[in-house]
Amino acid sequence: MRPFCIAVWTWLLVLEGLFLLVSSQPLQSDESDASLVRNCAINPPYLPPTVKNTSFHLSALRSLMDAQNISAYVIPATDPHLTEYIAPRDARRAWMTGFTGTAGTAVVSKTGAAVWTDGRYWIQAKRQMDCNWELNSGASIVDWILNETTAGEIVGADPFVFSVEDWESYSKPLLQAKRQFVAKEHNLVDDIWGAERPPVPTENIFKVPNELLGATWQTKVKEIRRQMKYNRYKPTAVLLSALDETAWLFNLRGNDIPYNPFFQSYTLLTADWIRLFVNESRLPQDIKEYLNTTCTTSECVQLKAYEDIRKNVHEYTKGNITIWIGQEYTTYGIYEVIPKSKLLIDRYSPVQITKSIKDPTEQKGLKAAHVRDAVAVISYFVWLEKNVPKGTETELSGACYVNNLRSKQNYSRGLSFETISASGLNAALAHYSPNNETNRKLSPDEMYLVDSGGQYLDGTTDITRTLHWGTPTNFQKEAYTRVLMGHIDLARSIFPAGTIGDVLDVWARHALWEVGLNYRHGTGHGIGSFLSVHEWPVGIGSGHTWQLEEGMFTSIEPGYYEDNEFGIRIEDVAMVTKAKTEHMFGGISYLTFEHVSLVPYERKLIDLSIMNKQQIGWLNNYYEKVWKTMSPVLRAQSLIEEYDWLQKHTRPFSHSVLVTSSLVVLAGALLGNLLLQGRLL
Amino acid sequence: MRPFCIAVWTWLLVLEGLFLLVSSQPLQSDESDASLVRNCAINPPYLPPTVKNTSFHLSALRSLMDAQNISAYVIPATDPHLTEYIAPRDARRAWMTGFTGTAGTAVVSKTGAAVWTDGRYWIQAKRQMDCNWELNSGASIVDWILNETTAGEIVGADPFVFSVEDWESYSKPLLQAKRQFVAKEHNLVDDIWGAERPPVPTENIFKVPNELLGATWQTKVKEIRRQMKYNRYKPTAVLLSALDETAWLFNLRGNDIPYNPFFQSYTLLTADWIRLFVNESRLPQDIKEYLNTTCTTSECVQLKAYEDIRKNVHEYTKGNITIWIGQEYTTYGIYEVIPKSKLLIDRYSPVQITKSIKDPTEQKGLKAAHVRDAVAVISYFVWLEKNVPKGTETELSGACYVNNLRSKQNYSRGLSFETISASGLNAALAHYSPNNETNRKLSPDEMYLVDSGGQYLDGTTDITRTLHWGTPTNFQKEAYTRVLMGHIDLARSIFPAGTIGDVLDVWARHALWEVGLNYRHGTGHGIGSFLSVHEWPVGIGSGHTWQLEEGMFTSIEPGYYEDNEFGIRIEDVAMVTKAKTEHMFGGISYLTFEHVSLVPYERKLIDLSIMNKQQIGWLNNYYEKVWKTMSPVLRAQSLIEEYDWLQKHTRPFSHSVLVTSSLVVLAGALLGNLLLQGRLL
Repeated sequence: MRPFCIAVWTWLLVLEGLFLLVSSQPLQSDESDASLVRNCAINPPYLPPTVKNTSFHLSALRSLMDAQNISAYVIPATDPHLTEYIAPRDARRAWMTGFTGTAGTAVVSKTGAAVWTDGRYWIQAKRQMDCNWELNSGASIVDWILNETTAGEIVGADPFVFSVEDWESYSKPLLQAKRQFVAKEHNLVDDIWGAERPPVPTENIFKVPNELLGATWQTKVKEIRRQMKYNRYKPTAVLLSALDETAWLFNLRGNDIPYNPFFQSYTLLTADWIRLFVNESRLPQDIKEYLNTTCTTSECVQLKAYEDIRKNVHEYTKGNITIWIGQEYTTYGIYEVIPKSKLLIDRYSPVQITKSIKDPTEQKGLKAAHVRDAVAVISYFVWLEKNVPKGTETELSGACYVNNLRSKQNYSRGLSFETISASGLNAALAHYSPNNETNRKLSPDEMYLVDSGGQYLDGTTDITRTLHWGTPTNFQKEAYTRVLMGHIDLARSIFPAGTIGDVLDVWARHALWEVGLNYRHGTGHGIGSFLSVHEWPVGIGSGHTWQLEEGMFTSIEPGYYEDNEFGIRIEDVAMVTKAKTEHMFGGISYLTFEHVSLVPYERKLIDLSIMNKQQIGWLNNYYEKVWKTMSPVLRAQSLIEEYDWLQKHTRPFSHSVLVTSSLVVLAGALLGNLLLQGRLL
Repeated sequence: MRPFCIAVWTWLLVLEGLFLLVSSQPLQSDESDASLVRNCAINPPYLPPTVKNTSFHLSALRSLMDAQNISAYVIPATDPHLTEYIAPRDARRAWMTGFTGTAGTAVVSKTGAAVWTDGRYWIQAKRQMDCNWELNSGASIVDWILNETTAGEIVGADPFVFSVEDWESYSKPLLQAKRQFVAKEHNLVDDIWGAERPPVPTENIFKVPNELLGATWQTKVKEIRRQMKYNRYKPTAVLLSALDETAWLFNLRGNDIPYNPFFQSYTLLTADWIRLFVNESRLPQDIKEYLNTTCTTSECVQLKAYEDIRKNVHEYTKGNITIWIGQEYTTYGIYEVIPKSKLLIDRYSPVQITKSIKDPTEQKGLKAAHVRDAVAVISYFVWLEKNVPKGTETELSGACYVNNLRSKQNYSRGLSFETISASGLNAALAHYSPNNETNRKLSPDEMYLVDSGGQYLDGTTDITRTLHWGTPTNFQKEAYTRVLMGHIDLARSIFPAGTIGDVLDVWARHALWEVGLNYRHGTGHGIGSFLSVHEWPVGIGSGHTWQLEEGMFTSIEPGYYEDNEFGIRIEDVAMVTKAKTEHMFGGISYLTFEHVSLVPYERKLIDLSIMNKQQIGWLNNYYEKVWKTMSPVLRAQSLIEEYDWLQKHTRPFSHSVLVTSSLVVLAGALLGNLLLQGRLL
């Protein structure tokens, strides 16, 4: 009855979760049980049973490398669309090494092999990799390659799994050191993977229901063509490589990738025609009709084989053309076939920028999805409050329970990422997700962090709450309250339209910085309309965010992580909306945020005495909104316990703890005065 | 007796002053007097006497272009070191067009000629340019060139007056449109300028006095060599193109450029030798000895002719070498002779980054210079308070007076930029400096903004105050107070070491943003130790600032500008210093700012009722520091009026205006109660 509850270590553990600003140091916390991790320092090495034997893979790869005169081969953990989550078929690094963590790159040389990953995956890597593989951190991949090769030798890689920037981060220093970095169109890992490799996705592609649709694909195509026409560099075509670009443009979705409702595809769009590169057998007849696939004029979608993208783009470049690309999601494999003089490169494509502002239907959908999502989360919290004190629940059983609650909501299409359910010290790892080996019992003695979200046909959700069912320490209360103060100060900030998201980052951090605390991840990310849970370039504090405009949606998620102790994060999704200001300098709108998530915070972790009046005022307004929005929904679903819980948890905080106490003192003085006069005796 | 007081329109009017985030729109405010500006719409055109006849220049330039088959020629207002202020000899755009404003580029085609500049120079350009020149704004230079040329034609320019980025902003779109953008090593303007062109500087180069010196040049060279050695790309040489890099490295200064104590030079530094490219005749014998110019080992400075830099670098690149450059200050003229594979490009050179952290001697010098500078500014304010009500003073006479006060301070070496002395609506132009035509009488009816600074042998200063000698409006008070609140909130902010300056920008703006106000320039810039008044990459909110570390100095200068009404800016220099925090998350220092400028703000423009307790507390602490530091200095110099003025202007503000009034209300209630009881009747 709990369909999401089987926790195993597979390639599905591919969660990016947050987005680190600074990669963490190796965390040694649970290495105490030496039998769980490899030991390559003894002879013979100790290998736990979770390790994969990769000797055969390595010797097969080296034979291929030798035949092609390649001295080192680079294997990243990416796919041809630079998608955050990847399909099993694309998990080459995991298959080669045994290590299944999301982040990390492998390199194989003639005699060596090494994996680079950051601290959060250190233990996992030592449990999964045999001693063929060195384990490294830091940015020294090129140095390692230089040590393993000599001048004049060839370093190879599949250009379809590198962004342009990543490719150049190898090619430039390697060239400087007289190595060649050569694009090998055929991926060597695929050759040895053979029949074991998961098949290409064949599931049907489907359409977003009409009643949830804002703009038609024809309207969107028209808008992108308008932008092409008015661009000063006069691009003749736009190439869409990111999977959510094509999904958004045609209002289509698929199930190729965990957590992302995408399907493998590219789009090449000109003023005169549209080419969709996709496995045609996956399109039902009604979708073909919807796309007008039988004609070739400007309002028709010509279907082309997915594999033909490179060839087709290359042919197109022979004309007098300029192709407009977004550099962030275009692989070097496509980039290299287009002459530089025929490229118009922006960081993000016009589709990504246009998609970032949600139209009124999308706004309505996202808000509605968050109401249903809040029903699941509130129900989960009620269940936790009853069951945790019994000592029967764990991180995994909790995650199962909330995942299941989400699956029962209308329009549910699964999770938007793997649920982070983390108790006590596990929550100090910002990206932790529980597995059978790390699973921790939930207890009133520990703080508990749950970061989860769902995919719904009308929107994508993402929310984090940190709870305590017992008595928190003073430091836990202070840290939680300072995280909340930052969350609120960012939420209530006012700024001119067009302000870069990163500019607002300081609001979320200052209450922590003031006492020498901080967190090592970004503060917010854009979110899709039944698309990516992390949708760039909208966001705050990740170093590459965009100008904020009305109708954008971003998470707000400051945190604090005390190594080996606890983790705190408070995350909501908010919409950018007009603020009411007395002036409008520059003739532009001044903006602020409107909360879309609708779940109260942990009362017992809030220390009102360090908050200011404005912060407490914001909190009470938010609680009033949560109560007014959610209570009728809970009542309508006869969720009585949830209704009562919400009432208790959204009661207003006193604005004036300090003012009240002053008044008590003064009233006391007055009373004393009267007493002295004998009037009340 | 007023040596700085002759105000004429010459090429010396080359002030950058602030650093615009957004270029302003053309300002038409004082165009009312049509006789002052050109009118090209009538036949014959009306040309005011301030216009320069450029017909001869243009026909001479076009002959040269024709001979070299060039269809358009680009003339920027920069020099071969991309210095902020340029020597008269390098003011080619001004000489060609007649227009002397700092910012702006000219392009001459076979039949057309145009100048692009931003709004602040719009009027000036129309007063100085004849009708040969179109006047444009916006970023459409390339579009204009495309209109004036056809495919296959050549667009030429001198690569020594373009940064690499600027060069590519032309070459890429021109190439895309099938034009060639060709580097012409010999500047065509120089050929026609001939004997009129100011000569090369010959004045002696001098040494910073020993008693003011921190690190010796040998120590600095050693440090840069250390950074070369530990850089992963193993550069073999560092090339210094910016004039302040060479000046800082060798502790030498010159007088080639207005406001900047620099001399024309380049440096090429390897592990084994040092080459200084400079006109040798400018080095007195003692400086040659100081530099060890007679030997060639690693601790000796080999002198090379300034003109030979390109040839010498080109020869050096023939070896197995890698040259490390800072892209911001390297011209395309140097860049193009180095093969890409032999370049290590950072945005800023290691010298620029090292220079940005001041050593203890430099910190002491900068602080001491600011004390002397404050004596000048305080004396000026006392003089203004006495003389403005008489109606005898103007923006120009005021500027003269304060410039003269600075010149009398110890170690004075002139101004660090042209004094901005702006009354009433003139101050709404953030970069305004007065001239004979715009000069405005100072009056108790208007706000007055003065932004000024000096060069001293021990440091560079920069301070802005906004004053009012009459009765400000409520809006003026609110705007001033909000600018001050932003200034204070930034000054008292606490942040982890390594925070990018731009991250803190929101502190300076939020109090304005809250009511829909803003300003269109950056919030802070680094400042040199007897070097540039604008020293990058330290700064706040300009879009390209660096990680803040202890010992860096930056200005803090929010403002507000109401078109055609008034301008407000409050600018101080502050040092980045350790903050005392309870925790030190990440094991790093948490930092804050220590004010170095020492002049009180305008009391009658401060509205305490919109400030919070922390802001008022900061203000009182600062005033206490100003009083404690400056009063003994003023007394020692027998500046009695100034001493009294300072005492009056630094008296503490009441922390508790609101609390006090609450107490009055309560006391009133108590009194009323007692009265009702008949006890006091």
